[in-house]
Amino acid sequence: MADTPRVTIWNEYRHEKSDEKVAEIYPEGIHGALGAMLENSGFKVRAATLDEPEHGLSEEVLGSTDVLLWWGHVAHDEVSEETVERVRERVLGGMGLIVLHSGHFSKIFKTLMGTTCDLKWRLNDTERLWVVAPGHPIAEGLGEYLELEEEMFGEPFDVPRPDELVFVSWFGGGEVFRSGLCYRRGRGRIFYFRPGHEENPSYHNPDVQLVIRNAVRWAAPTPGAPPVYGNTEPIE
Amino acid sequence: MADTPRVTIWNEYRHEKSDEKVAEIYPEGIHGALGAMLENSGFKVRAATLDEPEHGLSEEVLGSTDVLLWWGHVAHDEVSEETVERVRERVLGGMGLIVLHSGHFSKIFKTLMGTTCDLKWRLNDTERLWVVAPGHPIAEGLGEYLELEEEMFGEPFDVPRPDELVFVSWFGGGEVFRSGLCYRRGRGRIFYFRPGHEENPSYHNPDVQLVIRNAVRWAAPTPGAPPVYGNTEPIE
Amino acid sequence: MADTPRVTIWNEYRHEKSDEKVAEIYPEGIHGALGAMLENSGFKVRAATLDEPEHGLSEEVLGSTDVLLWWGHVAHDEVSEETVERVRERVLGGMGLIVLHSGHFSKIFKTLMGTTCDLKWRLNDTERLWVVAPGHPIAEGLGEYLELEEEMFGEPFDVPRPDELVFVSWFGGGEVFRSGLCYRRGRGRIFYFRPGHEENPSYHNPDVQLVIRNAVRWAAPTPGAPPVYGNTEPIE
Amino acid sequence: MADTPRVTIWNEYRHEKSDEKVAEIYPEGIHGALGAMLENSGFKVRAATLDEPEHGLSEEVLGSTDVLLWWGHVAHDEVSEETVERVRERVLGGMGLIVLHSGHFSKIFKTLMGTTCDLKWRLNDTERLWVVAPGHPIAEGLGEYLELEEEMFGEPFDVPRPDELVFVSWFGGGEVFRSGLCYRRGRGRIFYFRPGHEENPSYHNPDVQLVIRNAVRWAAPTPGAPPVYGNTEPIE
Repeated sequence: MADTPRVTIWNEYRHEKSDEKVAEIYPEGIHGALGAMLENSGFKVRAATLDEPEHGLSEEVLGSTDVLLWWGHVAHDEVSEETVERVRERVLGGMGLIVLHSGHFSKIFKTLMGTTCDLKWRLNDTERLWVVAPGHPIAEGLGEYLELEEEMFGEPFDVPRPDELVFVSWFGGGEVFRSGLCYRRGRGRIFYFRPGHEENPSYHNPDVQLVIRNAVRWAAPTPGAPPVYGNTEPIE
Repeated sequence: MADTPRVTIWNEYRHEKSDEKVAEIYPEGIHGALGAMLENSGFKVRAATLDEPEHGLSEEVLGSTDVLLWWGHVAHDEVSEETVERVRERVLGGMGLIVLHSGHFSKIFKTLMGTTCDLKWRLNDTERLWVVAPGHPIAEGLGEYLELEEEMFGEPFDVPRPDELVFVSWFGGGEVFRSGLCYRRGRGRIFYFRPGHEENPSYHNPDVQLVIRNAVRWAAPTPGAPPVYGNTEPIE
Repeated sequence: MADTPRVTIWNEYRHEKSDEKVAEIYPEGIHGALGAMLENSGFKVRAATLDEPEHGLSEEVLGSTDVLLWWGHVAHDEVSEETVERVRERVLGGMGLIVLHSGHFSKIFKTLMGTTCDLKWRLNDTERLWVVAPGHPIAEGLGEYLELEEEMFGEPFDVPRPDELVFVSWFGGGEVFRSGLCYRRGRGRIFYFRPGHEENPSYHNPDVQLVIRNAVRWAAPTPGAPPVYGNTEPIE
Repeated sequence: MADTPRVTIWNEYRHEKSDEKVAEIYPEGIHGALGAMLENSGFKVRAATLDEPEHGLSEEVLGSTDVLLWWGHVAHDEVSEETVERVRERVLGGMGLIVLHSGHFSKIFKTLMGTTCDLKWRLNDTERLWVVAPGHPIAEGLGEYLELEEEMFGEPFDVPRPDELVFVSWFGGGEVFRSGLCYRRGRGRIFYFRPGHEENPSYHNPDVQLVIRNAVRWAAPTPGAPPVYGNTEPIE
């Protein structure tokens, strides 16, 4: 593993420019808040946003990214198919991908999962994310649970069975949700992490930040030659 | 699969004899209530209890059992090692096993899981069991969730990662629990189902009964020759 | 489950019309051979082929199909996006899908998996498919392994980790392959089964036929209301 | 994670003392060969053997061990129940465990798995271990497969479905075997790795050594407070 994963934070970056309340919580954008936090922890960090050329995700940027974070919500449809395909190829080739909150409906996540990724939702609830996999590296350093004021996401969550289930959320309104899910697709590791509604300051929460740092380390690629496919000769 | 699975309900059968409140809920014992329900659904049913010779689980009884239900709580230690080993061998050979509620601490479940099977608990809470695997045969015919007044069981639940996770419970006091878990061990299928505290009438609940009927069908053995082990010749 | 699953066999149906050798093996087409076998076992069977309108997979046909078999090879690209999406929605809604041999590269399988589904291959080898999940319903009635003269497919097979691994193949040329894989996506069950190169008579092999019959029964939908998604009120 | 995992290599250490052929291959014992290799790679290494008091696995030794390797074959029964239980508790508490070759029948592995762990076997075959999980940290730096002259182990391997399947072996005599299996039990990681028959010099093979070094790093504990179990108050 590269000693210091190179992180690119992709943010739709619309709410922060159009909604005063969100701008107060994230004056530098969600990518700004996450980026500063990760830089302070020693990661090499870049940001990329929807309205940049190629949405900021050129071959060059992706080619030098070890782990990509993805936050999107109102403009999933504006992400080009070309970019989605470019990201998908990089993930299958080994790049880590951390999908945050409303990113469950992003093209890249739906494409990698193959399902609708649909769920229930409701604003303004209490969320308690329980660690159901004590000893998992993404839960390192946490207590038994994280507690947040958040948007509710409820089951059923239409995703493939995860390779590992790290968090299960309890919500005050009566729902549960599998809120920390690990997948491997191709050589790449994918982590879906539920919190992060734009009107709640969840990315300033130290426990949420710790999970994201742990997830970046977990998702960093394992180096190795690409697999060999196609027509082959017998071995002996 | 045998058209009509032959079910044996194993019940510790102590609370019902020593506690008036429990006796009112289950006048014929927990095995009596579950047995009547399963018989009414067309299953062939027998009961076996702790205080019978060999705990009611002789070679003959086990040899003619397709699916075994297990309810125990205060007297796990009184179950003999011989009986545990006999049940374990039958499960590995194909017999289904449905472990109910406090059976999480039974010798047979701990032996098959290899872990402590420990958890948190508290009396008198509201439980809502959400179906997180819509389309799973054990959830057939259910709505989105079951609701019960029950004992709380909370995470972490120290069991191996299940092969399939069917239910996740929400509790009013703030906890979550993986409350419907599928495992295969050897040729046998195992289902752990959380509800059934002796002071709550959960086994009279129609949704709980439906889950148990579904689970019996799911756990019934798939016939086939036993695997071949040991020293073998090359195939060609 | 419907007592008698309604099966639709989708076949590309090109090799049989253009290649004499294949036509000799499958004079009525691969769909014809599989269809006769399934009908003889009591299933309700229809066929659908690439060159029919809507590739034979109209809303009406899919709406009355419990399990869809898929065989394609040289013309994956000719299957319309509309048809792929229609099939995908039905699978997520509960229809079973059995993907055969070169169908690993079909649009529908790749879309549901999210990965490249790439692999190694070579003609004319000996394949031995070992049952690694004794007791699984798809292996019911089989011996320890199936043996065939077949095209080789070799690892790595770029698919998500299966929910269940039923067969692992040994090839005379030195390769192995995960050749019987179970997935659930949405409410639907998916089984990938490796054998079936058009130049080998594998679908006339009784063991292969048994696996396909078992898989049809396993993949048949579990009835139930569709999941509820979207904005919801608190429960209490 | 501790920067440098502290490794204890447990070896039965009988063949090397009673069989000249084995003594030639491993003059310092299997533990000696593995220990020197791991020390040269910077790990802190100790050895423990069957005939030492407490089989060399006192509370003190286990308490200062991050990852335990286990090689045993002819004397599984001589390992005391007390030692097995002590090791099991440490694994559930977070210590990594790497079980080698005939260790599939060790008390500690069978206890943690809950199954018979039985398999087929035969001496003197060619084994080719294919990487089926490219990108997994245990396969880092390997080519597509490892090749060895070894004892054959064949399916079915009666173990629980692994959390991750890293290697599948091909054998010249016609068998396959799931030969690199990852499990989590409690907080601890377990890796079963097939090669290592005492009459073959497999632990001198650079690829086998690489796998073992990778596995030690993978299995090292993730620090954290132990889970809280038992009777608890509502959270709010």
